[in-house]
Amino acid sequence: MWISFTTDYGRRDGFVAACHGAIAKIEPTARVIDVTHEIVPGDVARGAVVLAQTVGDLPTGVHLAVVDPGVGTARRSIAVRAPGGLLVGPDNGLLIWAAEALGGVTDAVELTNAAWFAPVVTRTFHGRDIFAPVAARLVGGAPLHEAGPAIDPADLARLPEPELETGDGWLAAEVLNVDRFGNVQLAATALPAPVGQKVRIGDQHAVIGETFADVAPGGLVVLIDSAGRLAIAANGAPADDALDVVPGDVVRITLSD
Amino acid sequence: MWISFTTDYGRRDGFVAACHGAIAKIEPTARVIDVTHEIVPGDVARGAVVLAQTVGDLPTGVHLAVVDPGVGTARRSIAVRAPGGLLVGPDNGLLIWAAEALGGVTDAVELTNAAWFAPVVTRTFHGRDIFAPVAARLVGGAPLHEAGPAIDPADLARLPEPELETGDGWLAAEVLNVDRFGNVQLAATALPAPVGQKVRIGDQHAVIGETFADVAPGGLVVLIDSAGRLAIAANGAPADDALDVVPGDVVRITLSD
Amino acid sequence: MWISFTTDYGRRDGFVAACHGAIAKIEPTARVIDVTHEIVPGDVARGAVVLAQTVGDLPTGVHLAVVDPGVGTARRSIAVRAPGGLLVGPDNGLLIWAAEALGGVTDAVELTNAAWFAPVVTRTFHGRDIFAPVAARLVGGAPLHEAGPAIDPADLARLPEPELETGDGWLAAEVLNVDRFGNVQLAATALPAPVGQKVRIGDQHAVIGETFADVAPGGLVVLIDSAGRLAIAANGAPADDALDVVPGDVVRITLSD
Repeated sequence: MWISFTTDYGRRDGFVAACHGAIAKIEPTARVIDVTHEIVPGDVARGAVVLAQTVGDLPTGVHLAVVDPGVGTARRSIAVRAPGGLLVGPDNGLLIWAAEALGGVTDAVELTNAAWFAPVVTRTFHGRDIFAPVAARLVGGAPLHEAGPAIDPADLARLPEPELETGDGWLAAEVLNVDRFGNVQLAATALPAPVGQKVRIGDQHAVIGETFADVAPGGLVVLIDSAGRLAIAANGAPADDALDVVPGDVVRITLSD
Repeated sequence: MWISFTTDYGRRDGFVAACHGAIAKIEPTARVIDVTHEIVPGDVARGAVVLAQTVGDLPTGVHLAVVDPGVGTARRSIAVRAPGGLLVGPDNGLLIWAAEALGGVTDAVELTNAAWFAPVVTRTFHGRDIFAPVAARLVGGAPLHEAGPAIDPADLARLPEPELETGDGWLAAEVLNVDRFGNVQLAATALPAPVGQKVRIGDQHAVIGETFADVAPGGLVVLIDSAGRLAIAANGAPADDALDVVPGDVVRITLSD
Repeated sequence: MWISFTTDYGRRDGFVAACHGAIAKIEPTARVIDVTHEIVPGDVARGAVVLAQTVGDLPTGVHLAVVDPGVGTARRSIAVRAPGGLLVGPDNGLLIWAAEALGGVTDAVELTNAAWFAPVVTRTFHGRDIFAPVAARLVGGAPLHEAGPAIDPADLARLPEPELETGDGWLAAEVLNVDRFGNVQLAATALPAPVGQKVRIGDQHAVIGETFADVAPGGLVVLIDSAGRLAIAANGAPADDALDVVPGDVVRITLSD
């Protein structure tokens, strides 16, 4: 009976605990794995990326995610089913990539059944008042269709697809995420050349490899990361600093001699 | 069997885990919800504010809180009962507002029963050695009066009441807290005018509203927040930066035409 | 059925959750206490210090720790047994001091039994793919010797011992750690002189004491901290700023008149 929980709430305030409390009151046997609450405030794309690449590592259950700059507006509240689990959150693109990582959206509903919500629903904290209570009910076995009317999965809000372009001897890919170690994760899932191939990234030299230690300390290596994504890492150093990139930038990798 | 846990310990060190361990050793079935451990070191008032506004969202149980710059001095260690739960921590004002949010202090005791404490009580870590063990025993059903002698609730230490003054067309209120999103929470619980009314805050324009999106991006809105407090928010931006305020400052809101 | 969990993964990404997920999939009844995930990236010594001083406060179980700048290289993956518990992680010195705090290493094995690992083991995320699954199996009761071949405990990698030198009226000790409050923990376990003795630390005055309030606000006190280590604290202020020291520096304390 697992719920995973991803937000941009931070841990300075009591917001995360209030949602844990909402779950505990409805379904005390549920166990919650916090994915992260450190998504940059309002950065839906980063939340979607982190959730999508973590969700396959989590036990089967309900994935609750709230990065919701549109809280209190007309944006819909949704729950979606995928072969690998259920997801609950705002209809702003946050959940879709994770749902696809779990096999694709098979059903979606708009959350309208107020009997499932907190007794009073505020305009500014749907995590506590709507999403956490709905996740608790779903993990407890309540049927998805009772949460509200079906939505055509094709009508769910989507984020723009990250940029990815390949050519003869080069690849240009959007930076999806930079992790704590400064590893730069790209919107690609295959190595652009065999291990050992030298490449250039802007004016920097790098090599295609398999792990950080495939290059000298401080050197750049292009590898498939633990989430199955193409990434640029530096051995013992943050690659994002060396490359001067942030999420959303496009990085060009060119084969060199 | 729930314990909530609020401190200024941060998560860099093992202090929070040591308290979780102390609980687990005494009452392994207890489940702990971490409220926050990111209270600014020694800032008792901020701890009291965050705990008071979160406690109503948590399941019934024991609320353990430690922001304790006076650890090892003559300040008392206490446990208090309110209709909505028990609270354990130092007698420095940290617990009272939360106890009042749970219905008010009905009983209070000074923690003197050393049989409830860790075998060795250090002078600098009462969280691990006194408060967490006491919380564990209370959540396990041990009676409050066995923790130590009764204290008259009127004798508990209190923090100064936050400033709040209202007049004809204006309100001046202390900033209780600034959350992760930069929302500025004030020591007031009612809107100073109906939704839609324009107001001035210093030299800035704002409007009374219900949610962030009631103003254009970057605009300021005065609303009742999810904890039932008057707050100033900016749509998609941190209001504390716009207003240049920190907790403890007093903000003046004036109705304008 | 307790697992403690210490890393340098931070909480911005999904790495910690992925390991919680790996544990939950294998041993859903295991309960995890997060010690810290805020070890400075790659700082094995700081990880070792925090784990060693926390482990005695935790319930008996398996201690999973990953600060692993050599992931994907030839460094071994290990599990070790001590009288007070089991430890799992990389063979880089991270676990030894904690094992000694739990009574000393009695058995050690190299983790080679791939049947215990994730189906696919990446080169860059052994926390998820090797260490967490092994910890889950051990906490579930699987025998240590099935994890892989025995290693002579004397052959385990060790970090350099922290510096500690004492003379007539002075002591020089390495800074092991600086905690969130700025308390400076030293590689010594005994007071250099009785409580009340005045000392000098560089050009600063301090006094031997028992708790922070033994000196005026801002004053420096030398005491035995809650982990049983000699430490320098300032009353209500960060001592590391006053002394301008970081972990790894050596501090000299001299008795004064």
